[in-house]
Amino acid sequence: MGRRALWNSCISCHGRTALRSGNLAGKAVVVLASGAALAHLLLAARTSDPLPSWNEGAAKQAILKFVADVTAPDSPSFVPANQRIATFDNDGTLWVEQPMYTEMAFSIARARSLASSHPEWRNRQPFKAAIEGDRNGLADAGERGAVELLLATHSGLTSEDFATAVTSWIAHAEHPRFHRLYTRCVYQPMLEVISYLQANEFKTYIVSGGTLEFMRPWVERTYGIPPEQTIGSSIQTEFQSLDARPVLMQLPRLEFVDDKAGKPVAIGKFIGRRPIASFGNSDGDQQMLEWTAAGTGSHLMLVVHHTDQQREYAYDRNSPVGTLDKLLTEAEAKAWIVVNMKLDWKTIFPI
Amino acid sequence: MGRRALWNSCISCHGRTALRSGNLAGKAVVVLASGAALAHLLLAARTSDPLPSWNEGAAKQAILKFVADVTAPDSPSFVPANQRIATFDNDGTLWVEQPMYTEMAFSIARARSLASSHPEWRNRQPFKAAIEGDRNGLADAGERGAVELLLATHSGLTSEDFATAVTSWIAHAEHPRFHRLYTRCVYQPMLEVISYLQANEFKTYIVSGGTLEFMRPWVERTYGIPPEQTIGSSIQTEFQSLDARPVLMQLPRLEFVDDKAGKPVAIGKFIGRRPIASFGNSDGDQQMLEWTAAGTGSHLMLVVHHTDQQREYAYDRNSPVGTLDKLLTEAEAKAWIVVNMKLDWKTIFPI
Repeated sequence: MGRRALWNSCISCHGRTALRSGNLAGKAVVVLASGAALAHLLLAARTSDPLPSWNEGAAKQAILKFVADVTAPDSPSFVPANQRIATFDNDGTLWVEQPMYTEMAFSIARARSLASSHPEWRNRQPFKAAIEGDRNGLADAGERGAVELLLATHSGLTSEDFATAVTSWIAHAEHPRFHRLYTRCVYQPMLEVISYLQANEFKTYIVSGGTLEFMRPWVERTYGIPPEQTIGSSIQTEFQSLDARPVLMQLPRLEFVDDKAGKPVAIGKFIGRRPIASFGNSDGDQQMLEWTAAGTGSHLMLVVHHTDQQREYAYDRNSPVGTLDKLLTEAEAKAWIVVNMKLDWKTIFPI
Repeated sequence: MGRRALWNSCISCHGRTALRSGNLAGKAVVVLASGAALAHLLLAARTSDPLPSWNEGAAKQAILKFVADVTAPDSPSFVPANQRIATFDNDGTLWVEQPMYTEMAFSIARARSLASSHPEWRNRQPFKAAIEGDRNGLADAGERGAVELLLATHSGLTSEDFATAVTSWIAHAEHPRFHRLYTRCVYQPMLEVISYLQANEFKTYIVSGGTLEFMRPWVERTYGIPPEQTIGSSIQTEFQSLDARPVLMQLPRLEFVDDKAGKPVAIGKFIGRRPIASFGNSDGDQQMLEWTAAGTGSHLMLVVHHTDQQREYAYDRNSPVGTLDKLLTEAEAKAWIVVNMKLDWKTIFPI
């Protein structure tokens, strides 16, 4: 995040202050507002482009125009700050999802680390394949096997212990191709969009098919999005007493799948307001973008299209991971923003 | 809310600015911080007591001391702002819950307004009792009848249409004893606690047994707590297409009951951080307070004890609504704050 994020945070705070001070009489507030305005003028002169990792083009211009429109009080497109909700898919939209979802890589690593206390896994799929690093075996196990592996590696411990396991793994695990931490395989241009929206008083949310149990330990540091604004699929938990201490125990049951039609349902349940901006990259995000598009005021729908085999990956309609087929057709038909990663992004990852 | 809330908001924003500016070099930020500091000094001189509707006493002092401790950077009890989560029960903690939960009054009113299109309800309980205003009949229907009435009156329409129905009802419905809008039957001392915590960079949440569908349309205006920080029981919703428009349809199924052990589970799911302050009034809040108390850092647990028959109601262990029995025993044993409404509160409702 660094200086830009701090700069944006300051603008964000100034924006809120100015908004509230508008309702307050008294010279003290004028002092506050003018002090803040001066500070931001000075800072803004140093960093004028909020999206420096974006090449000039239709996508960048559409984002800038949308934010300018909804934040200008005299614009017919103005949206009050408390209704500026933006939702981001995670896998493939904010960070790399190839060659497999990072949460799956975590599940496999965790299955291996638990293998010695589960001798029965050695001859049972998908565990055998996970332990042996047999990618074909894992592929054969299919979605059902993936869910079984996920549940077995995400349950039987408290929410706090699970968070510790995630934190410990993600501090060291590296992407197999880029040889950098997974949390550094995030898209710099999208970090800039998050910061830019936050600076303009948007409340930014992650709405991911990944579990919230897996994401929440690291999202705040990685994206500047707090755990309570991170929505995902979820494991069922139960309030229990363990050694006379209350705990939330994670059970081997999937409670909710936050994908496809589940995304607008989760948005309704967790946020209770319709987003005015949504960002996705695969068919799992289609309904979230449709829900956003059906709002009555201004709205922005953006699809990240992975077109850069050299710097990242190129895939869409036929990819088993992150399939972008129906959504691409709809986005093109409805003139939603489709980001061509190769052309629109100056850089992919943070330096 | 008025001036106090605005004042508090300003402090809150200043607090965030100061915190962030600590990481930024440059004179511009010093200008910002000093302008804000001056503004707040001037404002603070005008309103020095953040809890003016509380009588002096142990409860008020405990709240003030807790907030001072967790916000003083040099205190061993200091808690960083992003971990300052406070959770409030709603019924009986923030507003009146006698002689019946307000959501039940809404359900009865809605059953009556829907009766003409449901002729089958005229001879079927609990609908017959609701339509006829037969309180004994409703009582006989018990909890099962209450849930049936709730589901029948909360489903079969979109989330937007339901929000409109709630907004329309709550704009006019009055409490049978106090003859004021339900949204004016809120506790002024608790509004002050919410504002005071917000001013000190707490993120305030409602965690209620009532449904989030019923609460979200009015909580922001009433408590200054946004819908996305309002957690409750929930109706199952489904993403559907209605007249070629995507909608969230409310189904006649209870998805989650946010009561007793459900409260810490919901806190885990919606917030993902443990509260450091929790406020309740009945046995339904016991586990939420236990979960808060089990945190490792500073924490505050407060129980509102309804002891004021004259200005409000007096009830506890034997009340069918808002039973306060096990929680009262535990709170007394563990020296949690028990507010004696009659003695601790100067005023009950906003003027």
